[in-house]
Amino acid sequence: MILENYIRDIQDFPKKGITFKDITPLLGNPVAVKECLSMLVKGLEGRPVDKVVGIESRGFFFATLLARELNAGFVPVRKPGKLPFATLSSAYELEYGTDTLEIHTDAIRAGEKVLIHDDVLATGGTASAVCSLVEKLGGEIVECSFIMELSFDTIPKSV
Amino acid sequence: MILENYIRDIQDFPKKGITFKDITPLLGNPVAVKECLSMLVKGLEGRPVDKVVGIESRGFFFATLLARELNAGFVPVRKPGKLPFATLSSAYELEYGTDTLEIHTDAIRAGEKVLIHDDVLATGGTASAVCSLVEKLGGEIVECSFIMELSFDTIPKSV
Repeated sequence: MILENYIRDIQDFPKKGITFKDITPLLGNPVAVKECLSMLVKGLEGRPVDKVVGIESRGFFFATLLARELNAGFVPVRKPGKLPFATLSSAYELEYGTDTLEIHTDAIRAGEKVLIHDDVLATGGTASAVCSLVEKLGGEIVECSFIMELSFDTIPKSV
Repeated sequence: MILENYIRDIQDFPKKGITFKDITPLLGNPVAVKECLSMLVKGLEGRPVDKVVGIESRGFFFATLLARELNAGFVPVRKPGKLPFATLSSAYELEYGTDTLEIHTDAIRAGEKVLIHDDVLATGGTASAVCSLVEKLGGEIVECSFIMELSFDTIPKSV
């Protein structure tokens, strides 16, 4: 099964010039979800995971499934103002300006083994901000997992 | 196992006078998640489900798990502007003003059996808007499932 066939390119979304990777065809197909999940847990055999952190909001989809598969707790990392209990914040750089993510201070205990999950790895800015949140709470990062990694052409193809 | 013990009341969130039901302690405990999931699928035995619709964003958590458990596809219903493909919209009343939810037009095919899931049932406005989206796409609603239902005192306790 080629999972790439279940990821749809949407041109100019959310803004002109960006090609968005739409994973909803994958999510809508239970066989593709099962296959993707089994690929995400590959390499984690024998490595205990206490908590799976999912990044709002497309990271939530597979992070909940990963948590269940690994018999771990699920922890949402969210945009500011969404988590109701005491939070820790981390700001990270965007192309223009900064953005912030939050985690509940009681979501991870010191020494817990943590798997971080998001749908896409692009610049790594988001994942890096989440790593710092997890580490500030004393969590030990087992792995950062993604469904796909974007590559960028550094030289424009047609000038 | 009393699942209520894993739901935390947060006073005055997101605004004064509202008691928010925080399900993150439940999500963080894999035994509680398993128990909650098994309660959510109770009564669905022998009733085929093709798609599980999760409502942004706390509805996503158990909707993905329900989809996997029932071997169904997962469909996110989202706030405006978040879904990248062609969408259908439904506006619904809030206490003050209206809000809108969207679904991909190709998310559900006519005749598919659909389970709708959200974390909380309050006035039913959100669920009702999502039912109308599913029905417009020709889906047959099997059930609307929630982790909890809020009750309201119609007469203030202290006047």
